[in-house]
Amino acid sequence: MIFQSDNMVGASPKVLDAIVRANAGHAGSYGADPWSQRFEQALMQFFDCPLEVFLVATGTAANALAASAICPPWGALLTHVESHVMDDECGAPEFYMGGGKLVGLPGIGGKITPEALDAHVAAEPGGVRRPPLKGLSIAQGTEFGLVYTPDELKELTVSARKHGLKVHMDGARFSNALVSLGCTPAEMTWKAGIDVLSLGGTKNGCLMAEAVIFFDRSLAEDFRFRRKRTGQTLSKQRLIGAQFEAWLEDDHWRELAAHANAMARRMAAGLAAIPGVRLAWPCEINEVFPVMPQVLMDHLIAEGARFYDWSDISMDPAMRPGPDEVVARLVTSFLTTPEEVDRFIAIAEDFMVQRRNAAE
Amino acid sequence: MIFQSDNMVGASPKVLDAIVRANAGHAGSYGADPWSQRFEQALMQFFDCPLEVFLVATGTAANALAASAICPPWGALLTHVESHVMDDECGAPEFYMGGGKLVGLPGIGGKITPEALDAHVAAEPGGVRRPPLKGLSIAQGTEFGLVYTPDELKELTVSARKHGLKVHMDGARFSNALVSLGCTPAEMTWKAGIDVLSLGGTKNGCLMAEAVIFFDRSLAEDFRFRRKRTGQTLSKQRLIGAQFEAWLEDDHWRELAAHANAMARRMAAGLAAIPGVRLAWPCEINEVFPVMPQVLMDHLIAEGARFYDWSDISMDPAMRPGPDEVVARLVTSFLTTPEEVDRFIAIAEDFMVQRRNAAE
Amino acid sequence: MIFQSDNMVGASPKVLDAIVRANAGHAGSYGADPWSQRFEQALMQFFDCPLEVFLVATGTAANALAASAICPPWGALLTHVESHVMDDECGAPEFYMGGGKLVGLPGIGGKITPEALDAHVAAEPGGVRRPPLKGLSIAQGTEFGLVYTPDELKELTVSARKHGLKVHMDGARFSNALVSLGCTPAEMTWKAGIDVLSLGGTKNGCLMAEAVIFFDRSLAEDFRFRRKRTGQTLSKQRLIGAQFEAWLEDDHWRELAAHANAMARRMAAGLAAIPGVRLAWPCEINEVFPVMPQVLMDHLIAEGARFYDWSDISMDPAMRPGPDEVVARLVTSFLTTPEEVDRFIAIAEDFMVQRRNAAE
Amino acid sequence: MIFQSDNMVGASPKVLDAIVRANAGHAGSYGADPWSQRFEQALMQFFDCPLEVFLVATGTAANALAASAICPPWGALLTHVESHVMDDECGAPEFYMGGGKLVGLPGIGGKITPEALDAHVAAEPGGVRRPPLKGLSIAQGTEFGLVYTPDELKELTVSARKHGLKVHMDGARFSNALVSLGCTPAEMTWKAGIDVLSLGGTKNGCLMAEAVIFFDRSLAEDFRFRRKRTGQTLSKQRLIGAQFEAWLEDDHWRELAAHANAMARRMAAGLAAIPGVRLAWPCEINEVFPVMPQVLMDHLIAEGARFYDWSDISMDPAMRPGPDEVVARLVTSFLTTPEEVDRFIAIAEDFMVQRRNAAE
Repeated sequence: MIFQSDNMVGASPKVLDAIVRANAGHAGSYGADPWSQRFEQALMQFFDCPLEVFLVATGTAANALAASAICPPWGALLTHVESHVMDDECGAPEFYMGGGKLVGLPGIGGKITPEALDAHVAAEPGGVRRPPLKGLSIAQGTEFGLVYTPDELKELTVSARKHGLKVHMDGARFSNALVSLGCTPAEMTWKAGIDVLSLGGTKNGCLMAEAVIFFDRSLAEDFRFRRKRTGQTLSKQRLIGAQFEAWLEDDHWRELAAHANAMARRMAAGLAAIPGVRLAWPCEINEVFPVMPQVLMDHLIAEGARFYDWSDISMDPAMRPGPDEVVARLVTSFLTTPEEVDRFIAIAEDFMVQRRNAAE
Repeated sequence: MIFQSDNMVGASPKVLDAIVRANAGHAGSYGADPWSQRFEQALMQFFDCPLEVFLVATGTAANALAASAICPPWGALLTHVESHVMDDECGAPEFYMGGGKLVGLPGIGGKITPEALDAHVAAEPGGVRRPPLKGLSIAQGTEFGLVYTPDELKELTVSARKHGLKVHMDGARFSNALVSLGCTPAEMTWKAGIDVLSLGGTKNGCLMAEAVIFFDRSLAEDFRFRRKRTGQTLSKQRLIGAQFEAWLEDDHWRELAAHANAMARRMAAGLAAIPGVRLAWPCEINEVFPVMPQVLMDHLIAEGARFYDWSDISMDPAMRPGPDEVVARLVTSFLTTPEEVDRFIAIAEDFMVQRRNAAE
Repeated sequence: MIFQSDNMVGASPKVLDAIVRANAGHAGSYGADPWSQRFEQALMQFFDCPLEVFLVATGTAANALAASAICPPWGALLTHVESHVMDDECGAPEFYMGGGKLVGLPGIGGKITPEALDAHVAAEPGGVRRPPLKGLSIAQGTEFGLVYTPDELKELTVSARKHGLKVHMDGARFSNALVSLGCTPAEMTWKAGIDVLSLGGTKNGCLMAEAVIFFDRSLAEDFRFRRKRTGQTLSKQRLIGAQFEAWLEDDHWRELAAHANAMARRMAAGLAAIPGVRLAWPCEINEVFPVMPQVLMDHLIAEGARFYDWSDISMDPAMRPGPDEVVARLVTSFLTTPEEVDRFIAIAEDFMVQRRNAAE
Repeated sequence: MIFQSDNMVGASPKVLDAIVRANAGHAGSYGADPWSQRFEQALMQFFDCPLEVFLVATGTAANALAASAICPPWGALLTHVESHVMDDECGAPEFYMGGGKLVGLPGIGGKITPEALDAHVAAEPGGVRRPPLKGLSIAQGTEFGLVYTPDELKELTVSARKHGLKVHMDGARFSNALVSLGCTPAEMTWKAGIDVLSLGGTKNGCLMAEAVIFFDRSLAEDFRFRRKRTGQTLSKQRLIGAQFEAWLEDDHWRELAAHANAMARRMAAGLAAIPGVRLAWPCEINEVFPVMPQVLMDHLIAEGARFYDWSDISMDPAMRPGPDEVVARLVTSFLTTPEEVDRFIAIAEDFMVQRRNAAE
């Protein structure tokens, strides 16, 4: 019953096997290897467009590098006030941007609306008091497990463009969001106005595979130098290239993400059916955010379940946890089994039943 | 006959197997996994001292992070004028230091002498015209394949300490140097006055395993934040921990490095015996630097050999290549075979014999 | 009726005269001039303690340099969410800190309470997700014209110290605050736990005179290099030294600030007496923040008055402007005359009387 | 006999008077004052072209800001190996560039030749090992008192352009160079291919007046934010605007520079005529660099003269000082009198005569 994060499992057997096979013999270093190069070709097919791709070691690096490509040191990058780039990367975006400023926008469930964006821009004071707004970074899915529909993305990027902003998508759980929407990769990215994407494989079946992908290729100028300068250019890049190649092949990513999402939906349905438990946000990817009594959370942990509590700042105020309640985050992965989901639900259900009985 | 770099081969079978074994099941993320933690314990035994260790994805990152730990944004870091940190990392040290200045010192074969260091310090103008000198970064072995003896290291670090400098060792080829010297890891590092070490496994049998090691643990304060901020904190760090653990176990690193060094010595001996070819510097690790006629280099490449030409700036002026000569760099690895070394030598020898015959 | 800012007037006659007198002949550059050196001595008497002082050209530079002295590139600096360093310096603190993160705390009237500070620290998630908290920057007076009493300062800095934070005071209107409180300079700074002070002369009678003052002198290490590196070391520093010396001499600063404060109090009393106008915050320094009908503001501007509207975010929610109201900021200076204050009040009063009459 | 630097005197009477006159009354802050605005207009006439100008407090800031405008954080900026930006600004260019790398080129007397530039570019290794070359920063006059002719500038900037480099001119002694050449300001700048100029008034009759001037106005985009962010946007900018306006008016700058240059030529002629003394470089602006016996230097200092010794690295090797000789730098200013020059020469002459007599 480990639901802490999708980064606590290794690679899928198929991805691991790709590492093993790619290990043999000599290969060009710093990306001049066949795996990286085939992946690049495959990626253009995947997204159905020309693009520039740069493999890196961590999602933090991918996001921070992408941020630096759309926001100069003297600029401001808008993002959700509780986004991962704002709150969980220990200042990496600011470091990679060279001092650029992250500015937080509000939004239920981590989603930024065109209205919120327009309102922020309208309230800018003018003059040189604030860094000029240069970019917008959104997450698909968000820190609260929600996804933007292609139409929502389009409306938001149209507004961003109107204000002169380039748009980055943090796709740490890109494949979960894509499976959830059932649209094409193109529809969720460049066709919806995304300029740069951080594509994450690590949370969905790879051991370490992250990429910065430029749909607006003009932003990729000098980027190979910029990546090298950040210590993100692996000498034996085949390690990443091979994982990503296997991950893309035969829709392996989809299979992995679909399973993780299904496990989350199963968990969500089970928990939502328990009186006294409700969902903070709908379950759209591989994360479930139940609002539950603190005593239930304590009980689940005592029974061996592992998961984190979570922020309620970006909830609809009317939905927020009461004084004895807490929001929890449960993350599923390609390794999650129906059995452990069901066991978690059963423990929760039993506890709440007994509690009600005791109260009567 | 691929002698371009020791980063063009994969992992040793034993290291690869460790990755495969570590892949199974759940494990704590961001370093809270058993492999990383066992490696940390093993490393203290290896160096026979308490220390702090931080695993990272690339040697560039290890060096740049270490540089930032001994030199503030407003300081200067002394290094060899042709060192890897100066010339081959695309400004990563400056980036990680936050603008700190790399200042180059001369030295035959990439080695800095206490005399050169003292002379540089003595020539500082005073006042605030130049950033204050804060650190010294040396490479063991150097970009020209030389090693400092423990006594040389001690003399140099005594001088550095006298000038208030902390000392970093770039150990991208640490194991090759250690095998070459036959001393203990402690004798080559903290007992010789080294404060921070970049320990590289990637060039000697790992796919991707680099570490920043603090012998002066006061320098490690806040370092976990600093690593995270640079995008070098892997969520599935077991990937590195498992490689390093296997690499250290049963002196596997030594076996790999000893082989690479032996192949280099074989190459060096063979080439030095050819009239018209000489060594720019003695062969001390897994690199050989023959000075040869340009036509021989062209011939070897035409025959399928792969290697780079190299700078002659740090050669003894009396030894520099003549007008039709060039310095080459040949790098061996744990995969290099005696056969390909011998074949390379034979081709060179044949060519030079025929050339002499033709000239007669 | 120019009430836009106290930076729109020149120097007082006495300060200007000091510039003229200091201009003659040769003097040591980069601070080695008698004016700078006498000012440093005078400042130690003024604050009644040993200290280190560094003269700079702008308040932005003083704040940003001070920020960089208490917060490293990888750290977070707490400040009020609407402070000048947060909102009006175009990212200068982030630039000078080398990427350190400004984190905003709420507080009525721009003042941070120990409770707000404690609550923020208590909510930190732990781990390496966020930059470690390193410093606290407060303003005396605040962007909303309020001052901390020495006791309030002490309570706040005790809390800061408990959390390991160094404390910076932005004293752009230091002299106005000091006159307002009637305490000693020492009581408002180091005796109240302040580690670093930005002392501003520019807004109170100088043309350009700002200083970074270290009460915690350990923070001043290397600071001369750091100042030089930011382009803030004037070759002819006598220009600043002479101004500051004259400003301190015979309590000239006090005379100037007392006048400006008195003009503000006169304005505040006059406006508060007008039905339909109220003060957003009490008038404690040389700034007045009336809440008034938008039509009154328009009328005043049409009559030739010059001033800005202001944010209401840091007001007590119960006091916030209604739908047709606005908050204005009126700033007085040593040049402000009672006549222009009275004229402003009279225009406002007449307008509101006529408006009431028309409404009846 | 103070010849240490031209930054040890105050402002000329005319410039000082401009400060006094500009001090009265209210004026727009942050550059919205009539003096700054009139200066901007006058400057366009002076250079006979449209341009963008930004006033700043120090020459270091002007150079560093200009550097940052032509070289991104991940780029390299070429400059003379002993230039002021390389050696005397304590890392300010690196700081303002956000980590960009200064790379030094050799050149007699501080001048870079097209050949040296071409050779450096030709030797770049390719790949991502080094930061891409983005800009070239030259000084007019150099640290060794030499000037580029317009033709030399043109040849150099043509080469720079060929390599994709933007060109910055450090004009700390711009007016001295201009008087020396007798050409127009346009001929020495944009007509010769200069993209950005640091124009210094401080060393030639102002107390503090420096400007960054963009001939390539596309480089000025966002620059007002960038200046603000560096703490270089003065609230009472009239202080600089008034000085610069008076400095430009009626060719006042020329009068001041012509005097300083004439004093230097007088010094150069006098010293060169003394047997045993020679000039390291021709006297082209307001600096003289005699090579003299160490004992003469000691004697001059004992007699009350004040000046610095100087580097001989950029001398023609054949001209370098002998074992008992030293290079000195003598700087003249608008305040220097013929009498003190003549007294200096006389003391030197007497000493050398007596020394010769004693030797005979």
